[in-house]
Amino acid sequence: MYQGLIKRYRHLLPVDDSMEIITLNEGNTPLIEVPAVAEAAGFSGKVFVKYEGLNPTGSFKDRGMTMAVTKAKHDGMKVVMCASTGNTSASAAAYAAKAKMSAVVLIPDGNIALGKLAQAMIYGAKVIAVQGNFDDCLRYVKELCAKYPIALVNSINPYRLEGQKTAAFEIVDDLGYAPDYLLIPVGNAGNISAYFMGFTQYKETGMSQKIPKLWGFQASGAAPIVENRIFEKPETVATAIRIGNPASWEKAVKARDNSLGRIEKVTDQEILFAYRLLATTSGIFCEPASAASVAGFIKYAKDLEKDSTVVMVLTGHGLKDPDNAINQAPEIFHVKNNLKAIEEVVI
Amino acid sequence: MYQGLIKRYRHLLPVDDSMEIITLNEGNTPLIEVPAVAEAAGFSGKVFVKYEGLNPTGSFKDRGMTMAVTKAKHDGMKVVMCASTGNTSASAAAYAAKAKMSAVVLIPDGNIALGKLAQAMIYGAKVIAVQGNFDDCLRYVKELCAKYPIALVNSINPYRLEGQKTAAFEIVDDLGYAPDYLLIPVGNAGNISAYFMGFTQYKETGMSQKIPKLWGFQASGAAPIVENRIFEKPETVATAIRIGNPASWEKAVKARDNSLGRIEKVTDQEILFAYRLLATTSGIFCEPASAASVAGFIKYAKDLEKDSTVVMVLTGHGLKDPDNAINQAPEIFHVKNNLKAIEEVVI
Repeated sequence: MYQGLIKRYRHLLPVDDSMEIITLNEGNTPLIEVPAVAEAAGFSGKVFVKYEGLNPTGSFKDRGMTMAVTKAKHDGMKVVMCASTGNTSASAAAYAAKAKMSAVVLIPDGNIALGKLAQAMIYGAKVIAVQGNFDDCLRYVKELCAKYPIALVNSINPYRLEGQKTAAFEIVDDLGYAPDYLLIPVGNAGNISAYFMGFTQYKETGMSQKIPKLWGFQASGAAPIVENRIFEKPETVATAIRIGNPASWEKAVKARDNSLGRIEKVTDQEILFAYRLLATTSGIFCEPASAASVAGFIKYAKDLEKDSTVVMVLTGHGLKDPDNAINQAPEIFHVKNNLKAIEEVVI
Repeated sequence: MYQGLIKRYRHLLPVDDSMEIITLNEGNTPLIEVPAVAEAAGFSGKVFVKYEGLNPTGSFKDRGMTMAVTKAKHDGMKVVMCASTGNTSASAAAYAAKAKMSAVVLIPDGNIALGKLAQAMIYGAKVIAVQGNFDDCLRYVKELCAKYPIALVNSINPYRLEGQKTAAFEIVDDLGYAPDYLLIPVGNAGNISAYFMGFTQYKETGMSQKIPKLWGFQASGAAPIVENRIFEKPETVATAIRIGNPASWEKAVKARDNSLGRIEKVTDQEILFAYRLLATTSGIFCEPASAASVAGFIKYAKDLEKDSTVVMVLTGHGLKDPDNAINQAPEIFHVKNNLKAIEEVVI
């Protein structure tokens, strides 16, 4: 019986037998072949998505959180804390609940999209809206975690990346080999670094023969690594990668260079096209940010080696952002209550 | 590499090698132990949830749809059709997209919750709002599917239940034995019937020793089977089981009686209490309708055999209905931009 990624990969993770494992059976997400996307890009190889939206709280963050909260619990902490308006807060709140700990989430006040916070709230986190910006929130989190026995679970917590690297293990285990390319959205840049760690560790322990080329994609309105400059006001429809000064900037550059990869940018228009294409041709609904992988694939398919194997990471489920789906979807037909009227629309 | 439930259980399903399998790698959902829920109910046995919200479109409907759409494709159909405002339409649209078929969804016009339709729309279904009620919509679907080569994928399609029964197989495979009890929400009553089919087939083929007692739970405002009467105007916060005249009524009664089970009702208040309890104590977020299982467990735990093994089915992900989560969640704290103000709320 599958019982979460720590149990499955514990020999490759910084855990020991004295730790109580805090898990929601995260990981073990499907690798789904998407031939229709390959076809749309005129690409001849094998193309898969790693559908991380099927983690328990709907995003890849759960992989890191099982590690971070297991460690916090082991250290005797009673509270976990983060600054986040999105997927991190949902995951932190869920794992804290499972661990019988409290979670505190700091967010900037004003223009709060309640939908994005619905999860953290229902899992029972204390959500505090601060009359400041995101940087203020993160600073307060750091100060309070330094002053009190509170575990910081933002991505600067190194256990987060340790958990996230297991997605690379799963891909190799599923395929039976390391893919030639891994395409991934880049926001705070922790995840591309985690995949690099994972693929490297699998190669070093003899579980695979090579490290895939890591190709990262930023939104063009939030492309600090591509343009090698901080974006003071990052802007993109892909909110989960709307980050102007990534925490793991250097690690991501290293992952790119050491894997002989690339980090490129895609426009919001390209992201939304890919988002719709994936749903309408392959039946897979992801967050807009996740579609940056697919947009990058379509844009740069011509540069990929022929007949190679490509895996695109979809970081979060589309249900995280239903408003965007409605904006992107076609109109509803309104018809009278008789067969003929309906027949005319259907046939 | 896991490639969906048909591939895994094809020897127990009505498929043959000539069929192209239409799959999104559905199934293989986690069975998660929830000791905090057992504790809250004062129950001494082992208690698990089967978290069906982690199917690709966020509900158990995908299990049936992979079968129904595989069959429709094999039969040369170009279009699938259903009447639904919720999970069925999302699933039908996704599998039709994967199969390169069209999907048509009929819904009653007026008071449409767009959020519930976001998925069907983004997967590319043609959504038609009819100036009539749900029964009108279903009647038109039947008429059009009889007149044209269109596949009807509402639950009267028998392939749906064939796919859904695989959840019972997975539970036995995960535990290594059949649980003593399976607790499940009952709306249109197809799913309890499907679990009965699955557990029965596993026993008959020697894969398990017994059939669990099936305990179904209806909402008290929509409890036709419990009260043995049609509810003309069913009403409950658990919209996915707001059904007054279940299609699989007789099958459900048979499943109950032949498994020595029960079908009982739970109030909206009990459902919402269970919904919050599961999220805040176990980090699991489900649809309100799914929480009927948990509400039933809490209400009737005293009648369960001591030290037995109980599995509760959670049919859909909580992200399907974020508005309800916000309504049920505690307030957000609003504080000034200084450490002291935040400290006062946190500590």
